Amino acid sequence: MEDTEANKAEASNGADNYKFLSRRGSHRQNGVIQPLLTDLYQITMAYAYWKAEKTTDCAVFDLFFRKNPFHGEFTIFAGLEEVMKFLDNFHYSDSDIEYLRETLPQSVEPAFFDFLKNLTANDITVHAIDEGCVAFPRIPLLRIEGPLIVAQLLETTLLTLVNYASLVATNAARYRIAAGHNVQLLEFGLRRAQGPDGGLSASKYAYLGGFDGTSNVLAGKLYKIPVKGTHAHAYISSFSDCKELKRRTIKHKDTGEEVDFIDLCRNWKEKLTPDLDVLQEEASDGELAAFASYALAFPDSFVALVDTYDTKRSGLLNFCAVAMALDEMGYEPRGIRIDSGDLAYLSTLARQKFEQIAKKFDRDWFRTLSIVASNDINEETIWSLNEQGHQINCFGIGTHLVTCQRQPALGCVYKLVEINHTPKIKLSEDVEKVTMPGKKDVYRLYGADGHALIDLLVQTGEDAPQAGSKVLCRHPFHESKRAWVNPAKVEPLYHLYWKDGKILRALPQLSDIRQRVADFLKTIRQDHKRNLNPTPYKVAVSDRLYHFIHDLWLENAPIGELS
Amino acid sequence: MEDTEANKAEASNGADNYKFLSRRGSHRQNGVIQPLLTDLYQITMAYAYWKAEKTTDCAVFDLFFRKNPFHGEFTIFAGLEEVMKFLDNFHYSDSDIEYLRETLPQSVEPAFFDFLKNLTANDITVHAIDEGCVAFPRIPLLRIEGPLIVAQLLETTLLTLVNYASLVATNAARYRIAAGHNVQLLEFGLRRAQGPDGGLSASKYAYLGGFDGTSNVLAGKLYKIPVKGTHAHAYISSFSDCKELKRRTIKHKDTGEEVDFIDLCRNWKEKLTPDLDVLQEEASDGELAAFASYALAFPDSFVALVDTYDTKRSGLLNFCAVAMALDEMGYEPRGIRIDSGDLAYLSTLARQKFEQIAKKFDRDWFRTLSIVASNDINEETIWSLNEQGHQINCFGIGTHLVTCQRQPALGCVYKLVEINHTPKIKLSEDVEKVTMPGKKDVYRLYGADGHALIDLLVQTGEDAPQAGSKVLCRHPFHESKRAWVNPAKVEPLYHLYWKDGKILRALPQLSDIRQRVADFLKTIRQDHKRNLNPTPYKVAVSDRLYHFIHDLWLENAPIGELS
Repeated sequence: MEDTEANKAEASNGADNYKFLSRRGSHRQNGVIQPLLTDLYQITMAYAYWKAEKTTDCAVFDLFFRKNPFHGEFTIFAGLEEVMKFLDNFHYSDSDIEYLRETLPQSVEPAFFDFLKNLTANDITVHAIDEGCVAFPRIPLLRIEGPLIVAQLLETTLLTLVNYASLVATNAARYRIAAGHNVQLLEFGLRRAQGPDGGLSASKYAYLGGFDGTSNVLAGKLYKIPVKGTHAHAYISSFSDCKELKRRTIKHKDTGEEVDFIDLCRNWKEKLTPDLDVLQEEASDGELAAFASYALAFPDSFVALVDTYDTKRSGLLNFCAVAMALDEMGYEPRGIRIDSGDLAYLSTLARQKFEQIAKKFDRDWFRTLSIVASNDINEETIWSLNEQGHQINCFGIGTHLVTCQRQPALGCVYKLVEINHTPKIKLSEDVEKVTMPGKKDVYRLYGADGHALIDLLVQTGEDAPQAGSKVLCRHPFHESKRAWVNPAKVEPLYHLYWKDGKILRALPQLSDIRQRVADFLKTIRQDHKRNLNPTPYKVAVSDRLYHFIHDLWLENAPIGELS
Repeated sequence: MEDTEANKAEASNGADNYKFLSRRGSHRQNGVIQPLLTDLYQITMAYAYWKAEKTTDCAVFDLFFRKNPFHGEFTIFAGLEEVMKFLDNFHYSDSDIEYLRETLPQSVEPAFFDFLKNLTANDITVHAIDEGCVAFPRIPLLRIEGPLIVAQLLETTLLTLVNYASLVATNAARYRIAAGHNVQLLEFGLRRAQGPDGGLSASKYAYLGGFDGTSNVLAGKLYKIPVKGTHAHAYISSFSDCKELKRRTIKHKDTGEEVDFIDLCRNWKEKLTPDLDVLQEEASDGELAAFASYALAFPDSFVALVDTYDTKRSGLLNFCAVAMALDEMGYEPRGIRIDSGDLAYLSTLARQKFEQIAKKFDRDWFRTLSIVASNDINEETIWSLNEQGHQINCFGIGTHLVTCQRQPALGCVYKLVEINHTPKIKLSEDVEKVTMPGKKDVYRLYGADGHALIDLLVQTGEDAPQAGSKVLCRHPFHESKRAWVNPAKVEPLYHLYWKDGKILRALPQLSDIRQRVADFLKTIRQDHKRNLNPTPYKVAVSDRLYHFIHDLWLENAPIGELS
């Protein structure tokens, strides 16, 4: 066991991270997802297969989705590392077996539980697209081969691990596209996530999809994601006025000279009042006390929440006063957060005031203070702010990101495509639901400009398409939709990730997968990524696969009878 | 420590369950939610409070929501047991402290980490509404009192534990109302949940809200929820024909006589063909093989998924054949599951065929076979099926239940209402967002017919309303909206749950809370619960609280200046 673990560690760059994760628990036992995290019918099917002496039957399953989420035309594949760890540790504990024995009907033969007890995923082979890869409908993300019983038992857990991970990573990538690359994106969704671990998954995969950090401290600790945060309205409300402050002094960062910081802030407040177009009495003294105390705690990373009373008439003045006071003491304040109101207007107003003060007091850094916005923001809000013009440097995004409000589930499915080397096709009146039978490989074909042109599914065993040679790409269901493609580059999308009980390909660090997402997205044409009416990316089959599908379809489809 | 644990266990009916849960992990460490499962700003605020020497400041926070979810007019409160366990174990581990030390700015004083290290929730007092209680907007679900720093540090985790739990419990209760009490409801959502633990929370709180069971085996094991399931389409597809079946015999349940079950099924198939209005060749032999093999595995709990090929032309005939064969061998088949197509039509057709066969072959039990439906069902589907008429006995509900598609987040908030015995009011241009200042108690007033009339918030210290004495109930913000209420019964909604580091009120078993939900819902008038345009339930304040709010409001609201 120790030996195997060592082998796996060598095979995996993510090994450190893995060992770290292994100390976690819950739906995990000894750090891994438990195999009972599944639907009961997987277990009842396993028993029926076992009873029918189908234990040596060999199956191929495809895990794929049929439609990109969020009315978009791309998806980010995520969850693979968790899948690998699940396979690596797939094993029913004694207490699992005991529970199943109590739960399944009395008639279930005891020998079945002995069979379950010795089950591992070691006879399973998994080909997968790399985690972080841009993926498209009908292209299987995972191809699972091996004993029917085991492959079937994996279904629900694999879907659980891939579905939400890919959904939230895709959502995050869309926010990144909307916000552009010069704006910071922070995930603030923990309190609105689907329970405690829903929040952890959200933070992890939002980062993978392109966010810069999270407010979720545990996610920071577990996944090494940058964590960010300032204070809440309650912090501001908990101060009534400056008189109550017990600690008032600050030392100059360079000289060490100690002064009364509160007096300094009040002086600046008085001085700045005309520039902010407000009366000094309008700006809350409690808010000034809160800002000043926060600045005393974090003089080098001071960010103030300015909308507790009134952004325009109170928060901005108090912030500017404290910021100038900090500057006078040798520190660099960071900026403000706005959590309500008209974000386009308020951010523009704030920037204008910052520029005015920068100019008047010759403080160039004041111009570029950071403006964070965080009020129930979704993708549409960002597009709308882009249109209106805004001065926001950072969005904090919660509910809409983590709940994927626009489409809260990705419909990944897990379909049997081959059994004992016989291809299987699942027919449906809805053509989109017809499955692609048999074992397949998949290639991404690139044009000369470096953009991806088309994904091509071929039968396993067919010659791979070659760069510089034209290949016929066919729509899987529409006979007349065909195109010759002459790719400048051909990339096989599948890699052998799991065989003989070993993880065979490195699992990169989360931050490397995050970079991979950004790199992959660059290879996708702009019109596939745009928000409004994006062009569908083409997914095709080879001519041979086309005929194979359609022959099998005709063979299996009953000739109906109108009655 | 052992002693305290024992005390707590005595105080809690849920103690067994608790200990069991304690063996879990993940976002939990040694079985409990970790205090780092929070937003970073809670920690930065804690430091700023500590720096400002506000460690002895005393705060009161209310946790409440502002709007019922799903366009409804009621909410089920859930998550309290998890909140209690979180408080009970609130403690930063050495590795937490180490992580915070690395993460917070260098300037943070080392003594702060010593302070954090010794922090517990023992000085916090929590009053709460019972878990499973029907709750309404603006009535705080939890009132948290104690040291400002600690109360603030609890915010995110408490919100995380209550928000999704209450949302999905409410969703489940709505499905129960839609489906009525004679239909079984099963939660099938694991594969579409927000990651692994999202699935566990969904299963737990869907059961609490009124579901009868789940497909999630781990949830069954952890929370003692009934688990259910049959087989998937892949099971059916994995059989090609009856010839391949290796095990064919079955023993009669009573006589032990062994016969060829496959032959028996085929005989029945031939016999039943005319009754099903299909040709025998139309009905897939592979499907018959799959059903027969499944029946051999589960002869006393046989449920067949009938839509893999064609419900009408294949599935129903094959099911009826296997069911009659089982009956002949002394077993009782259970029914069918339909996962696609027109559920109203197909369920009615199936029932009609069942009745026809029952009559023809004098098998009365055939009439009442169970029909399970499970195709992307939401609340609207159930209402629509009710209108059309259907013969479904059980719904399996996944995506829409667990993702709460109609509204994927409940907006619970956590607001400071008092600091050092001074009430705090958070003003907002949106009246609905104005907080209710100060410490409050809450009573539910019932009419003579047993229905709840109104929830009344009073200032803590005010006399409680009395049954048989009329009390003035006022709208919190509209001066003219007032009513005298003469309650037949008055129920205080708050109970002291946590004080001096002890859980002071029993935490019932999940199944008891589930019963409580059903009982509470009976006390709510039908018009508050209906799907279409439900009547809002009234939430009022006492006359004294009304004046207290409005005096404070005027005192705090700045007199604006139009410019």
